[in-house]
Amino acid sequence: MIPMSTIQVIQDKALALKNNRAFELFVVGVIIISALLVGAKTYPIPETISKAIVWLDVGITFLFLFEIIVRFIAEPNKKRFFHNGWNVFDTLVVVVSLIPIDNSDMALVGRLVRVFRVLRMVSIIPELRTLLNSLVRALPQLGYVVLLMFIIFYIYAAIGATFFAGINSDLWGDIAISMLTLFRVMTFEDWTDVMYETMTVYPLSWAYYLSFIFFTAFAFLNMVIGIVVNVLEDEHAKERAEQDEEEGNASLNDLRDEIRELKSIIQTLQK
Amino acid sequence: MIPMSTIQVIQDKALALKNNRAFELFVVGVIIISALLVGAKTYPIPETISKAIVWLDVGITFLFLFEIIVRFIAEPNKKRFFHNGWNVFDTLVVVVSLIPIDNSDMALVGRLVRVFRVLRMVSIIPELRTLLNSLVRALPQLGYVVLLMFIIFYIYAAIGATFFAGINSDLWGDIAISMLTLFRVMTFEDWTDVMYETMTVYPLSWAYYLSFIFFTAFAFLNMVIGIVVNVLEDEHAKERAEQDEEEGNASLNDLRDEIRELKSIIQTLQK
Amino acid sequence: MIPMSTIQVIQDKALALKNNRAFELFVVGVIIISALLVGAKTYPIPETISKAIVWLDVGITFLFLFEIIVRFIAEPNKKRFFHNGWNVFDTLVVVVSLIPIDNSDMALVGRLVRVFRVLRMVSIIPELRTLLNSLVRALPQLGYVVLLMFIIFYIYAAIGATFFAGINSDLWGDIAISMLTLFRVMTFEDWTDVMYETMTVYPLSWAYYLSFIFFTAFAFLNMVIGIVVNVLEDEHAKERAEQDEEEGNASLNDLRDEIRELKSIIQTLQK
Amino acid sequence: MIPMSTIQVIQDKALALKNNRAFELFVVGVIIISALLVGAKTYPIPETISKAIVWLDVGITFLFLFEIIVRFIAEPNKKRFFHNGWNVFDTLVVVVSLIPIDNSDMALVGRLVRVFRVLRMVSIIPELRTLLNSLVRALPQLGYVVLLMFIIFYIYAAIGATFFAGINSDLWGDIAISMLTLFRVMTFEDWTDVMYETMTVYPLSWAYYLSFIFFTAFAFLNMVIGIVVNVLEDEHAKERAEQDEEEGNASLNDLRDEIRELKSIIQTLQK
Repeated sequence: MIPMSTIQVIQDKALALKNNRAFELFVVGVIIISALLVGAKTYPIPETISKAIVWLDVGITFLFLFEIIVRFIAEPNKKRFFHNGWNVFDTLVVVVSLIPIDNSDMALVGRLVRVFRVLRMVSIIPELRTLLNSLVRALPQLGYVVLLMFIIFYIYAAIGATFFAGINSDLWGDIAISMLTLFRVMTFEDWTDVMYETMTVYPLSWAYYLSFIFFTAFAFLNMVIGIVVNVLEDEHAKERAEQDEEEGNASLNDLRDEIRELKSIIQTLQK
Repeated sequence: MIPMSTIQVIQDKALALKNNRAFELFVVGVIIISALLVGAKTYPIPETISKAIVWLDVGITFLFLFEIIVRFIAEPNKKRFFHNGWNVFDTLVVVVSLIPIDNSDMALVGRLVRVFRVLRMVSIIPELRTLLNSLVRALPQLGYVVLLMFIIFYIYAAIGATFFAGINSDLWGDIAISMLTLFRVMTFEDWTDVMYETMTVYPLSWAYYLSFIFFTAFAFLNMVIGIVVNVLEDEHAKERAEQDEEEGNASLNDLRDEIRELKSIIQTLQK
Repeated sequence: MIPMSTIQVIQDKALALKNNRAFELFVVGVIIISALLVGAKTYPIPETISKAIVWLDVGITFLFLFEIIVRFIAEPNKKRFFHNGWNVFDTLVVVVSLIPIDNSDMALVGRLVRVFRVLRMVSIIPELRTLLNSLVRALPQLGYVVLLMFIIFYIYAAIGATFFAGINSDLWGDIAISMLTLFRVMTFEDWTDVMYETMTVYPLSWAYYLSFIFFTAFAFLNMVIGIVVNVLEDEHAKERAEQDEEEGNASLNDLRDEIRELKSIIQTLQK
Repeated sequence: MIPMSTIQVIQDKALALKNNRAFELFVVGVIIISALLVGAKTYPIPETISKAIVWLDVGITFLFLFEIIVRFIAEPNKKRFFHNGWNVFDTLVVVVSLIPIDNSDMALVGRLVRVFRVLRMVSIIPELRTLLNSLVRALPQLGYVVLLMFIIFYIYAAIGATFFAGINSDLWGDIAISMLTLFRVMTFEDWTDVMYETMTVYPLSWAYYLSFIFFTAFAFLNMVIGIVVNVLEDEHAKERAEQDEEEGNASLNDLRDEIRELKSIIQTLQK
């Protein structure tokens, strides 16, 4: 059995390497090269370079594997490592990259995994992680908005598919296609072409489109903006409160405490 | 006559059933199935399934009827039941579903009512009801904005119909069509095609479109955003005030009271 | 000479009539009818109705004249009457309506004036006037934003007209047409068609469009939203301050005054 | 050697001229004329006027040179002059204008420099400079948002170029073209045409477009709006704090100081 002290030494070394600024920059560099490789593959490239890319790719995969192992060893609590979503994501991307894939069906999956390596940029830069987290934190509030939107879409799509299917089955054939068409209307993309077509049969169908646009484009956008502004303001208020505390500014609670102290002094005086 | 106690027992049982978590989930499930049926009908389906859907539909209608009756009995004050808009909506949807409709004209109405059953999802989930209510609360403030917009649309449509009717009667034939065309311009949907056409006759008509876009797309959007942000902030401020109270944070009024108390103590001291 | 008291009596009667609720509703009704007439004229109408409209029109003009005179007499300070922009606007619309116009050139002006009568709805409804005023109050802040936008448009239009005039003179012929084309690009209206055309000659011209879209659509929209939110918040803060005062809530200044009073009491105690 | 006092006299005179209101208006006028010349050149103009423009241009260049020299002399600390970005920009524009350019290749550069002279309007009007500065101040916060957007664009473009290159190489040929196409989709410009084309081969590709639109158009717009609102509110809060101080309104810190003073008085009383 390996003595505890040896494990400790390895863990400390891994931690030192993980927190090493040069190592961090090196990993960022490797991620950027890996992203450029993904881009390069979309251009017509001569065979020699193509082969070089394959070897570079293998190298990057093993460098990523090494970096994940270092981070895993550096973590004192091994169980916690996989509680962090980014660690799970990084491990998955590396593990899938390691599987040798030759047949053409799986080759596409392999290429996709290489594309997702670019997302490792987000997992490595703290500011990007903060940004994404703040966006994710707004999601629960958005959840019910999205559900409400889905219900509105579903109802309008059911009406659209019922009445307009005979007019243009490419746009209104069934409820799924109708929802796609309504999303198009919501983005104002050639929505009048869609409307003019149904207006030849149902002259009043403009009311269908106008009410839909009002409910979705306007109402939704505003709800989303409102929530985002709210979430940002909350964070802002928190930051201000923390800053006030640091700078020793008085809060209402501080004042109350001061006044109460004063009262107790006066009361002792009274006796 | 049924003795009061029996009525009371039934009412209590209805209330217990209404507040039963399993019953609630069952109703949500039935609503979802009813929504899926509406969607399924827009696909080409074999006759046997079509017949099954008809029977399912009848079952759902009676389940909804049962649920409404339970909720009605559970309500201690029967008159109040119909003061709640959602109850009225639910009752209407169920009652209209009960009417047997055979001839083709009314069949469409029947299908539409089944579509609106999906809206029952909003009436059953409290968070969605809150969301919709907050949207509805912003409406009175929006009312005058919509009126102002309508006046701007009307004036521009009158000018458009007067000058451009001879150029393209499909777009500018009368004031109603002109307003639809202007709504299209407001959504930026192929608005330059409309403009270039009138510019061949009136080279300065770009001023008409640009001023309209400025007044509506920009001014309107901003007013709406402003109001929504305002309404949300108000609710936010209220929530914060309530939270402060719960957490026992000092308010300015609390401080004033403390100071006044102090003053009265000192004044007794003075004597 | 008319004795002062007679003038006073007439002025009081005019004021009473002006503030009469029924008279106000009657004027709103006349404005709505006048608006409907404007709309009706855009439809093909039989001669008899057309003649009736002409007579109605004359009647409305004289009613408006009567209402303006009543408001003018009701005003104690005659000079102030024309300091109010809405009064000037109302008077102008009525006076121009009174001029008999027969030849076809001026007939259009006459029709336009009748269209602007609809705007009297804004001058008569206080809430709409408030809304428009708050929009107008945001204008000075927007002024410099518009100037900055114009400079950006001018520079891009100059570059566009210099390089792209030979490619498509309909879109880039001179600096004025180029600015119109750029406005179209800013509204995202078929902007890729414009871009793909110039990219055949200058493959890098996408940078021109992308930078322009970034500067205008994004930057401008955000500045406008920011200013509107700011203006609305200011008004909001004012309202809250007034409400606090009315409800007798404590302000920081109130607390300071209370504390100072306390101090003076204690100081008298000290002696 | 020129005696220090002479230099001082010249510097004072330059400062007086620089701060002279008439001189300032004259410079603004020259900039406007220079902007109009840039616009005039995009119209077909007779040769005589064309020659006059060339001479006017030379005149403007020397006036600008004179103005820069005045401003440079007026600056007490010569090194600081070039620390100001606007001064560097002004000097560059004037110096490049001075270089005589005859051959056709460089002529375009000369014309471009004359276009950028219009930007001097921003450098001369303080309000525009403030506006631009506040926009620039929001940039660091936007930086990471732009980086996140770029990563999302890159990943989607890599996927698009991998799967759709065979369908339409004009839109999806390589990763650069794919990113341009995705920007087009983000602006909702004929994005359904792009989608319908790929849906004929990959019927599920709508998920690609819808998720992309959700991530970029909605998420991005909201983040940008949020940041701008935040930055503006910060400035606003600062202004309010300054205003409170000027008007002598009580702050929480003031109150604390008053209470503490009170306490020390009471404590002396106690002894």
